[in-house]
Amino acid sequence: MPFFLKSKKLDFKADGPYVAVLRDDEAERFGVHSGDDLEVRWGQNKVIAEADFTSSKVRSGEIGLFREIWEDYKLKKGEILEIKVLSRPRSIKAIIKKLLGKSLSYREIYSIIKDIVNRRLGRSEISYFVASSFARHYSNEELYYLTKAMAETGAELKFSGKVVDKHSVGGLAGNRTSMIVVPIVAATGLIIPKTSSRAVTSPAGTADTMEVLSPVSHSVEKIKFFVKKNNCCLIWGGGLNVAPADDRIIRASHPLGIEPYNKMIVSIMAKKVAMGIKYLVIDMPVGPTTKIPNMKLAWDIERKFLYLGKRFGMKIKVIMTEAREPIGRGVGPALEARDALRVLQRHPLRPIDLEKKSIKLAGELLELCGRAKAGKGKDRALNILESGQAWKKMKKIIKLQGGNSKINSEQLTTGAYKQRFYSKKKGFVCAVNDKSIDELARLLGAPSEKLAGIHMHLRIGDKVNKGDPTFTFYAQGRERMSLARQALSKTKILTIKS
Amino acid sequence: MPFFLKSKKLDFKADGPYVAVLRDDEAERFGVHSGDDLEVRWGQNKVIAEADFTSSKVRSGEIGLFREIWEDYKLKKGEILEIKVLSRPRSIKAIIKKLLGKSLSYREIYSIIKDIVNRRLGRSEISYFVASSFARHYSNEELYYLTKAMAETGAELKFSGKVVDKHSVGGLAGNRTSMIVVPIVAATGLIIPKTSSRAVTSPAGTADTMEVLSPVSHSVEKIKFFVKKNNCCLIWGGGLNVAPADDRIIRASHPLGIEPYNKMIVSIMAKKVAMGIKYLVIDMPVGPTTKIPNMKLAWDIERKFLYLGKRFGMKIKVIMTEAREPIGRGVGPALEARDALRVLQRHPLRPIDLEKKSIKLAGELLELCGRAKAGKGKDRALNILESGQAWKKMKKIIKLQGGNSKINSEQLTTGAYKQRFYSKKKGFVCAVNDKSIDELARLLGAPSEKLAGIHMHLRIGDKVNKGDPTFTFYAQGRERMSLARQALSKTKILTIKS
Repeated sequence: MPFFLKSKKLDFKADGPYVAVLRDDEAERFGVHSGDDLEVRWGQNKVIAEADFTSSKVRSGEIGLFREIWEDYKLKKGEILEIKVLSRPRSIKAIIKKLLGKSLSYREIYSIIKDIVNRRLGRSEISYFVASSFARHYSNEELYYLTKAMAETGAELKFSGKVVDKHSVGGLAGNRTSMIVVPIVAATGLIIPKTSSRAVTSPAGTADTMEVLSPVSHSVEKIKFFVKKNNCCLIWGGGLNVAPADDRIIRASHPLGIEPYNKMIVSIMAKKVAMGIKYLVIDMPVGPTTKIPNMKLAWDIERKFLYLGKRFGMKIKVIMTEAREPIGRGVGPALEARDALRVLQRHPLRPIDLEKKSIKLAGELLELCGRAKAGKGKDRALNILESGQAWKKMKKIIKLQGGNSKINSEQLTTGAYKQRFYSKKKGFVCAVNDKSIDELARLLGAPSEKLAGIHMHLRIGDKVNKGDPTFTFYAQGRERMSLARQALSKTKILTIKS
Repeated sequence: MPFFLKSKKLDFKADGPYVAVLRDDEAERFGVHSGDDLEVRWGQNKVIAEADFTSSKVRSGEIGLFREIWEDYKLKKGEILEIKVLSRPRSIKAIIKKLLGKSLSYREIYSIIKDIVNRRLGRSEISYFVASSFARHYSNEELYYLTKAMAETGAELKFSGKVVDKHSVGGLAGNRTSMIVVPIVAATGLIIPKTSSRAVTSPAGTADTMEVLSPVSHSVEKIKFFVKKNNCCLIWGGGLNVAPADDRIIRASHPLGIEPYNKMIVSIMAKKVAMGIKYLVIDMPVGPTTKIPNMKLAWDIERKFLYLGKRFGMKIKVIMTEAREPIGRGVGPALEARDALRVLQRHPLRPIDLEKKSIKLAGELLELCGRAKAGKGKDRALNILESGQAWKKMKKIIKLQGGNSKINSEQLTTGAYKQRFYSKKKGFVCAVNDKSIDELARLLGAPSEKLAGIHMHLRIGDKVNKGDPTFTFYAQGRERMSLARQALSKTKILTIKS
């Protein structure tokens, strides 16, 4: 039997399922228990919320709702809501079935993903689902079902023409190849609607970096407009509702600190399917500090990508590269944007490692979709870069997305506080501490303070003389600079041996 | 690096881990992300809390703390707290290891249980642990480790003498044998410190029922006093901190609606070990509506109980009974207490099924610990019951625990609103709908309104004439009575065939 309470706004955010707060006495009266899900209805709307409890924060006759519901729905304060305690959804049965080691049908997998999207399953339930990917084997067929369900439960974009993409599996700092690969590939006329993510625990994601040059948060309509005008874009994928289950699954896996590989493959592929990609190059750095520690695993993952590609009619090439240190010189949005622009604008100080990797990836993609003969992709990509066509394409991207296309790489760090550090001895660089670099760059203010970050003057193997610059700190204010300098006294970025 | 914020009390309860609420801007400043755990210190205290976020409910420089922390610790408002974002605990690694199918050492299992108890693991993490019991095999040795760790991470009680107990696995309505078995067994001089639980989704637990006769919420010191004076007690086990991990694990399994069997065995045994029990009879109803649907599973569970008993030096006997309908006539605290008292006071209307089952269980326990010869336990138990010794013992329990020992079974429902229903046709009872009975009893107000519930005049197989009483509703107020009568029009308690 439903009961009725008036809505009250509570300014809290749990970042998981929707949360509804009942008075203790009312919870008892209506038989609502810890862990119960409530169905909340008003007008034509229906949401599922997890029950929390209070003795004073809502008045008798009211129900408190956390911020997420108010952000996602039009709901008036004091609106009368019809509330029902829900029995367990069928998707729970499917999750238990998988935990017990049985195969799931498409219908069962779809019910799980759909209930994640409409917040019918809470974080705890999603944890059980994630646990099943650790503990149980998912067949290729099941991975196909998962991918399909994830793509279908969100927005699906359609573009006409040869739609291509490049994706980096991640786990490597400063790997900003997208901002170079996209304009190169787009200059040949291919459609490349590139979406990227923001940093979660790192000092910058590609979306944070691109944001230094232009706004990156755009609607689906805008993206279609960009692609129509310029056959490409470089935007943040987070606001598009593409494969929305993925985000919530990632959050539920957060406490474990690792992501099941199957889950990673499915979430990448679901987004590509939803974006209508037909040719895809996957950049897969393999190494002890990346997500994929060894080649055996890398080959296994490659096979699964290729299988799913076949099922969805997508041509895929996986490029494995050995990863030992960050790509490029800068860490932090503006500094990484400067690296990318230096490559596009052919600046003498451009990072050669970033340029080489971008040309490799662009070349492979051109070969994969027939824009270059086998073995000739790299030459074609380099030619597009050197002739200035890539920079021309990038300028159009920046302009369309609302940025200043007259920007020069060397203007990007104007206004930053800088502090350069120098070597105290002669020798060579034998180690670079990625983790310290990331932590210090965040302490300096990255990614939310765009100018903040660290520029590395040296790489592993470089020779150093006493007094040579080692790295430079960038910050937007004195306070953060001094915080980072203090922290530097307790850690080490470079190890120099004589 | 730690940061410092002032404590603010927030009147919310999430019923899982401790929750600390940060302002959005401060979370960004200190690099706190959704799903992070915070270590919060002040004076000699240290707690682990899950991070939630708000834009307005705490002021700059403050951190909001949900109710649980304030209930568990002495903490002043405005106290300066030292806060640190925690890296993942080692117990997480152990959980992942088990999800991947490897065996755990005692040290690893202990780290998981300890982190559950000190709230270092949140609900989502505990879900991963529960998932491992569904998906992976736990060896007998691992079950022993789990039991030991659960017992050792909470309060441990020691009594001298022969300490015995009876435990019902549950899942059967109205199964109030403890209130009869305890006085019978205690009358022979055995030590039986019985702890029971309250109802979660049912209309009454043994603790709710016993509470009709006396208070049941007592300290460990009080329990020791009861046992010293009267060699037994009948109290609520929830406030004693005995095997405290269990409660949190149960909550994390709540969304699934089922409990892994291994988990059930371990949680029962951990409590018995912590209570110092040496002889234990386990009542295990087997049937489609109970927790254990078939005999094969029942035998498997029995083997595990016996194995653990051996490891802990505890003599165990498992009694399996076929379960097809509720035991006794009443459903709801006062009505179930009346059933038990009618048996103890030898009332002509006493429920014979409840009496028989209690005598069986008491007899088995007497035989197990040598108070009766093989095959003679039931006679001895019946004799104690018929001679009034059991009622005498119960009166002393009620008096010591602060109740009225002059109570008569027929006074227990005084003051209730009653509504009797009658059969509209002649025939016999071919089905009883347990689920409807439970739901209607709760709707009438059980378990919080003690007088509320349903008394069944008929059982499966009984003959009925037109106009015979079928069942009676009891409530504390008119409103609930009319609610339940309305609901009755949409469901069916008894099916009568002519």
